[in-house]
Amino acid sequence: MPVPGEERALNAEAIQRIAPCSGHAIELRAGDQLVVIDPLGQQVSDLTAFSLEDRVEYLSSGRSIDYASKLWLSTGDVLYSNRSRPMFTILEDTCGRHDFTLTPCSKRMFELLYGETEGRPGCEGNLAAALAPYGIDVDRIPVAFNIFMNVSVDGSTGAVAVLPPLSQAGDFIRLRAEMPMVVAMTACSAGQSNNFSYKPIDFRIERAS
Amino acid sequence: MPVPGEERALNAEAIQRIAPCSGHAIELRAGDQLVVIDPLGQQVSDLTAFSLEDRVEYLSSGRSIDYASKLWLSTGDVLYSNRSRPMFTILEDTCGRHDFTLTPCSKRMFELLYGETEGRPGCEGNLAAALAPYGIDVDRIPVAFNIFMNVSVDGSTGAVAVLPPLSQAGDFIRLRAEMPMVVAMTACSAGQSNNFSYKPIDFRIERAS
Repeated sequence: MPVPGEERALNAEAIQRIAPCSGHAIELRAGDQLVVIDPLGQQVSDLTAFSLEDRVEYLSSGRSIDYASKLWLSTGDVLYSNRSRPMFTILEDTCGRHDFTLTPCSKRMFELLYGETEGRPGCEGNLAAALAPYGIDVDRIPVAFNIFMNVSVDGSTGAVAVLPPLSQAGDFIRLRAEMPMVVAMTACSAGQSNNFSYKPIDFRIERAS
Repeated sequence: MPVPGEERALNAEAIQRIAPCSGHAIELRAGDQLVVIDPLGQQVSDLTAFSLEDRVEYLSSGRSIDYASKLWLSTGDVLYSNRSRPMFTILEDTCGRHDFTLTPCSKRMFELLYGETEGRPGCEGNLAAALAPYGIDVDRIPVAFNIFMNVSVDGSTGAVAVLPPLSQAGDFIRLRAEMPMVVAMTACSAGQSNNFSYKPIDFRIERAS
């Protein structure tokens, strides 16, 4: 789908699928576009990113929320790094609701919140496994940009609740990379986040060159 | 002030003052209590913490919000590390409103949001300077626990707004340390956060032994 104002054609790669309850890492250069798609509806993809030039620079929820003056980012908003540099611009967003307040689900979170003892790695473990080749370990997985995750906030009490995603089959978000990055994404493992459907996530890269 | 259920007397140290627009680091052991006081009212203190045993473990907004199921933590709530271990328990809180979504104010934030060109370090720079002796640099300053910071959230749009703190002179929060930590705190440098009053912050440590 062409983006208004984009004069240069991008080279679209094939759609790739992230299997349920797993993660995947890709490299993007500045100007590349990443389209994250919910192929079946009501699935969440936790996304995090690190600069390829200096991996201490990472996608920062606190910077992005501060500069946008809103919790829920959508078309036109910029996602910033901890160094206050733009990492992504949201070019299109057919869902309109994502979370940027919660850390990825994890083995320990499953134990504490749901009493699970299966030892599933969760999005945290899956992101860390995907990022291991880049020297980024589990302790460095920050609050993620949780695409399609629907977290309500009560403006009078601050209470938050994880609700089923608003995304329907085919909904997508299109992100333009603003620097060279390694980006890790998941198909979420937390039942509460994806309405206990544990579906896959699709993505497509459109290369600037 | 005695805490219900606390059987062992603590050794209260003298109150210390953090000068306006500066930061300070302290070490706490498990069981120590830290009382952060707004001596004049309407001032914010950004607080962050790292485990002294392994400094890759830090105070995590995303874990704490997730486990409490609320944005605004107060008496009885636990502040967790990125490794999902308790770092603090809030024992008392006479204000009741703090923020845990925004990164500390910074030189770059002052430029981007307010057009300032004075190069003030902000809470980010002041926290980093206080933590430098511990080998923790500015890139590792996360979303802080912004004590007394009053950030409203519109539950229908997600819009956030930084409002004057609700804290009055003498309001305080009492935190019990749950592990050995280095803790850095500021007297906030952002005018919007402290209603353009740039006041000091006081604190007192009560040692468990």
